[in-house]
Amino acid sequence: MKIGVLGTGVVGQTISSRLKELGHNVMIGTRDISKTHANRERSPMGTPPFSEWHKSHENVNLGTFAEAAKFGEVLFLCTNGAATLDALRLAQPENFKGKTVLDISNPLDFSKGMPPSLYPQWANTNSLGEEVQKTLAGAHVVKTLNIVNCEVMVNAKKTGGDPTMFMAGNDAKAKEEVRSILEQFGWSDILDLGDITGARGMEMILPIWVRIWGATKNGYFGFKIVK
Amino acid sequence: MKIGVLGTGVVGQTISSRLKELGHNVMIGTRDISKTHANRERSPMGTPPFSEWHKSHENVNLGTFAEAAKFGEVLFLCTNGAATLDALRLAQPENFKGKTVLDISNPLDFSKGMPPSLYPQWANTNSLGEEVQKTLAGAHVVKTLNIVNCEVMVNAKKTGGDPTMFMAGNDAKAKEEVRSILEQFGWSDILDLGDITGARGMEMILPIWVRIWGATKNGYFGFKIVK
Repeated sequence: MKIGVLGTGVVGQTISSRLKELGHNVMIGTRDISKTHANRERSPMGTPPFSEWHKSHENVNLGTFAEAAKFGEVLFLCTNGAATLDALRLAQPENFKGKTVLDISNPLDFSKGMPPSLYPQWANTNSLGEEVQKTLAGAHVVKTLNIVNCEVMVNAKKTGGDPTMFMAGNDAKAKEEVRSILEQFGWSDILDLGDITGARGMEMILPIWVRIWGATKNGYFGFKIVK
Repeated sequence: MKIGVLGTGVVGQTISSRLKELGHNVMIGTRDISKTHANRERSPMGTPPFSEWHKSHENVNLGTFAEAAKFGEVLFLCTNGAATLDALRLAQPENFKGKTVLDISNPLDFSKGMPPSLYPQWANTNSLGEEVQKTLAGAHVVKTLNIVNCEVMVNAKKTGGDPTMFMAGNDAKAKEEVRSILEQFGWSDILDLGDITGARGMEMILPIWVRIWGATKNGYFGFKIVK
């Protein structure tokens, strides 16, 4: 399947690598191709720049946000939450029309230091997922995967168990497509939370995710619904 | 142990019943004793009024908030989130001095209909748990149990598994006391999230709790950290 991945950071890299391993045809999109190629700095989290990752992943094409959006039959949003809506405008919403869009971005505000809070305009009575759906009115947005570390996103068993993954979106067929991708990523306990407003709760999990990470010094965990 | 429980609703009743079964000496506190005795209406959730519950629990004394706070060596806050801080003022903060206080209340705002959101002044960059600690400056507040249905609070195994319970508070000794109570309630996987600011993430779990309940039609679940 042709898949477009928006965002060249560690989340976009990890998702793209795994999709490629699974045999998909992947284009990764960025704001500025030459800047992305030229960047030699590690991220604030210490992960390598795109250029270094790309050396061992030359079969993943780099394009603009718009080229990647146009290329993909399915799209992954892996941009920084604060930049997501701006990236979608650059990617041109008409390029997403009728497509399934997995929104895995989080509205984390690091501007006040650690731990991050959520941007209030996208929390509690709203969510980034809902704003993404409004921006991409012709697409089928499904919020998912945002509640775990990116290595766990693409390999649920990395937690050492069988955690639950949630999804929320307005279109049943798109959620079936997402379920199939999640299964390819090793998720077997998948819970549909209903329409896209379910993104509120999924994004509001992030503060406890950060806190659990701090308490356990282990980012490779998931949430299992025990019932 | 002498334990005071603030709040006569279904959460206060369920906690009090279980503490009594475990052999503790319990006083339950209310705003207005005669009104609480006289109330014959079921709650909006359909649970029986206090007077009906009390018929089979006459060994639990009913007092004012202040009497219950004075009585308890340990206190449980089981009031409606919106009313919690007002209840503490009526209970007189000096009655909590040096005591361990389990805050299990949630800042849920039902005023805009279902599903509830969180009161913005107590969410994201603040929490009800932190406000409780500020109001009871001389006490050791521990946020815990707020992330599950009250029947699961007092019997973790009711989920059919072994879910994780979190706690957050500033005083290590108080958290050891809380751990012992949680163990009496059947919790064996207990994770200390650090100081009371950990209450933010614990309270922000509520929107997904409500959503999971809606999706599964089953309130008897817990969150297990799989790692």
